[in-house]
Amino acid sequence: MNYKLVFRLLGRLLLMEAALMLPSMGVSLIFRQGDTLAFLEAIAITATVGGLLGFLLNPERDDLTARDGMAVAGLSWVILSFFGALPFVLSGAIPHIVDAFFEAVSGFTTTGSTILTEIEHLPRGVLFWRSFTHWIGGMGVLVFTLAVLPRLSGRTSHLARAESPGPTFSKLLPKMGDTAKMLYALYLGLSLIEAVCLLLAGMDLYDALIHTFGTAGTGGFSNYNASVGAFHSPLIEWIIGVFMMLFGINFAVYFHLVRKEKEPILQSEELWIYLSIVLVSTLLVTVSILPRYGGFFEALRYAFFQVTSIISTTGFGTTDFNLWPLFARALLLLLMCMGACAGSTAGGIKTSRVLLLSKSAYRDLEHTIQPRKVAVVRLEGKAVQESTLAQVGVYLSLWVALAIGGTLLVSLESSDFVTAFTAVLTTLSNVGPGLNGVGPTENFAAFSPAAKLLLSFLMLAGRLEIYPVLLLFSPNVWRKN
Amino acid sequence: MNYKLVFRLLGRLLLMEAALMLPSMGVSLIFRQGDTLAFLEAIAITATVGGLLGFLLNPERDDLTARDGMAVAGLSWVILSFFGALPFVLSGAIPHIVDAFFEAVSGFTTTGSTILTEIEHLPRGVLFWRSFTHWIGGMGVLVFTLAVLPRLSGRTSHLARAESPGPTFSKLLPKMGDTAKMLYALYLGLSLIEAVCLLLAGMDLYDALIHTFGTAGTGGFSNYNASVGAFHSPLIEWIIGVFMMLFGINFAVYFHLVRKEKEPILQSEELWIYLSIVLVSTLLVTVSILPRYGGFFEALRYAFFQVTSIISTTGFGTTDFNLWPLFARALLLLLMCMGACAGSTAGGIKTSRVLLLSKSAYRDLEHTIQPRKVAVVRLEGKAVQESTLAQVGVYLSLWVALAIGGTLLVSLESSDFVTAFTAVLTTLSNVGPGLNGVGPTENFAAFSPAAKLLLSFLMLAGRLEIYPVLLLFSPNVWRKN
Repeated sequence: MNYKLVFRLLGRLLLMEAALMLPSMGVSLIFRQGDTLAFLEAIAITATVGGLLGFLLNPERDDLTARDGMAVAGLSWVILSFFGALPFVLSGAIPHIVDAFFEAVSGFTTTGSTILTEIEHLPRGVLFWRSFTHWIGGMGVLVFTLAVLPRLSGRTSHLARAESPGPTFSKLLPKMGDTAKMLYALYLGLSLIEAVCLLLAGMDLYDALIHTFGTAGTGGFSNYNASVGAFHSPLIEWIIGVFMMLFGINFAVYFHLVRKEKEPILQSEELWIYLSIVLVSTLLVTVSILPRYGGFFEALRYAFFQVTSIISTTGFGTTDFNLWPLFARALLLLLMCMGACAGSTAGGIKTSRVLLLSKSAYRDLEHTIQPRKVAVVRLEGKAVQESTLAQVGVYLSLWVALAIGGTLLVSLESSDFVTAFTAVLTTLSNVGPGLNGVGPTENFAAFSPAAKLLLSFLMLAGRLEIYPVLLLFSPNVWRKN
Repeated sequence: MNYKLVFRLLGRLLLMEAALMLPSMGVSLIFRQGDTLAFLEAIAITATVGGLLGFLLNPERDDLTARDGMAVAGLSWVILSFFGALPFVLSGAIPHIVDAFFEAVSGFTTTGSTILTEIEHLPRGVLFWRSFTHWIGGMGVLVFTLAVLPRLSGRTSHLARAESPGPTFSKLLPKMGDTAKMLYALYLGLSLIEAVCLLLAGMDLYDALIHTFGTAGTGGFSNYNASVGAFHSPLIEWIIGVFMMLFGINFAVYFHLVRKEKEPILQSEELWIYLSIVLVSTLLVTVSILPRYGGFFEALRYAFFQVTSIISTTGFGTTDFNLWPLFARALLLLLMCMGACAGSTAGGIKTSRVLLLSKSAYRDLEHTIQPRKVAVVRLEGKAVQESTLAQVGVYLSLWVALAIGGTLLVSLESSDFVTAFTAVLTTLSNVGPGLNGVGPTENFAAFSPAAKLLLSFLMLAGRLEIYPVLLLFSPNVWRKN
């Protein structure tokens, strides 16, 4: 590893993080709930460390190897979360450092799992920061970095490989930096539209921003214990439901939409499969929960909200779905693992991978009975390389291995299988709530510090598509160049 | 499909099944509990149908295509189970045909899940047949067929591809028929040794045979409600535990052992990984359950028995492990899915596949940080083809898809996630018991006929390594040649 270069990059990232804390300090100044000093201290510490690393280190060589790219991707999220936890600790909102780290990781990875038992008592500046981390994390710290630090562009394809969600993130524009800026503009634009919609539906500005951050990053932190259910407003539920679905779509689709290019959108298999899954799942859940609600449309509203919330890996809630029939719960668990489209802010395995595995399986089945026929797997009209198919299989294996290993470790201190299993699935998929002991009305406070660190690790692994996080444990990555 | 040829083969298989019912009828004659007539009727029906299909059909062509091979593999297990259920129905032991079919599928697929609530009341001839199906199923009806119908040898490689458990079943002898005979001889020999050990340990001949059938086939049907726990004999528990472990080993190892070839045994990665997993899991479970038992060695005995029972996918029990700490239960669930070695009578995903996926994942991780290095995955010293690695990934995907789809469907009628999930895992892995509602002291009687058929399908899919069973749903397979 080119230590000096890697740490210089991390330092500059910390400087940005310090700057990103300023709006939250502004909010704390408006509401005057005693959290302003904490932000001041956090910004001072973060900026000092960032400045020292970012400007005092002078790397001999400026080239970023694949190893370094992976290390930056993995480390940046850990370090951002560590310093991002400072406002929680310093304000006394979350006194224990492991709890605060868990909450910050949950924020930046856009998971939305919380260790807080009583959200509404916290100062509004802290809550604003907590949700703002979703928005920052949403588009990926590194896409962010790419848009702000274009100096590195052209050398950063390794970074992008580590960060890009899903197997085939289309290169939209020839230059990586331009792509990042365009994605960032789309992200900002879509967020603005949602915030305006929520304001028009009757939310105040603060709530509208908090819930836009949670939706755009597909995170799920709310400033109410009852989450979106606290508003008792079907209109707000529909708006957030639709935007959760929209933020689960590959941003390449919006890029083509802005350019008025119909063809690539119509041909996007992933998009149509994703929308079909949302539709079918919503209908199935509606039928399953129908007896519990006052009619088809009420059930449909709850079903649509929860389906889009889980498949987009957001995790907002309008009701306690842990009380729903087992079929609805099991279906939500499946959607939780699957996640939404590659190239979106969603977590999970991703629709495109599921699609590739299905096509690959179908091809193998056909091959078994027609051994002489040579068939190529195609996605969105293009032939997929065999090595890509193998990699997707490997990715699934690693994902399953993390889920199993995580469950085994959490089961050391839990007595309920469903709690342990869904705590692992929901963190690995960056969703937020699970079932039973970590259900929508529960939280992660009861776990030991060790389990909280393990679940933080799973959130990071899920968010960074496993490889960069696992590679942090490889001595090869840490070997000096 | 070459209908006439496929059905002629199936007919001859039925004739064999009729012959295989004779020993059970013999047992019924000895104990005279009113089940002899049922066997006579079952044999008459099976032999008549078998004779009509096996000798009246005259196929124009004698060659078995890949499609036909798959169809024979899939259909033979369904048809054997259907006719194998006749003694249960005709004797009144299991009056409902779906229940009887489930029990027969569970027998032939060497699963050992039961719908019986009260085993000890059944006539001994019926119980003998029930366990004997394990023994028949154990080595695979088709390996059996290959040894008895050597006329087809040389043309039957498609059959073997469909049947052989695991990705790379070494060809031990140049001729398929010779291999089958050798495997069969080893199976018979190992069974005899176990039966003698059990007799020496104090079992009577009937119990010794029943439990040998259950062990050799890695099935798990017992003639006692308390399973192996009914004997209250540590010696018997150790003997059966060791033999369950032995029957989970690739039979190629025994072949080399008989030939006194040390090298291939020492080089068998799968063997040593499997034995290491058994050792480590036994120790972990021992520590986990230590507070519940009277000392280390008692805990070790229970742990070793349950670990070998689950990893070999047998399913015998000496205690209610559903009451064990969650860690021990979760570990057993993992072993349940993993299963033992390829080329054994065990079910599950198989150690060799897990090994290949791990190596493949490690290779991909290395590749990410050293993109220029070309690395080949090796198993037992030989380079593994990329297409094989992709196929193993696809196999895992199909397995996971069946587990998820099965759980969703079972959850339509169940209210407990763990019951639904482990009912699916235990049948798909051909183990027998699961947790909670299908735990070691429970059974599958409470499920609806539809769920029983679904679980039967999963048992067949798991036993035949998915492909032949899924292909039965492909119109291509049923198209006339």
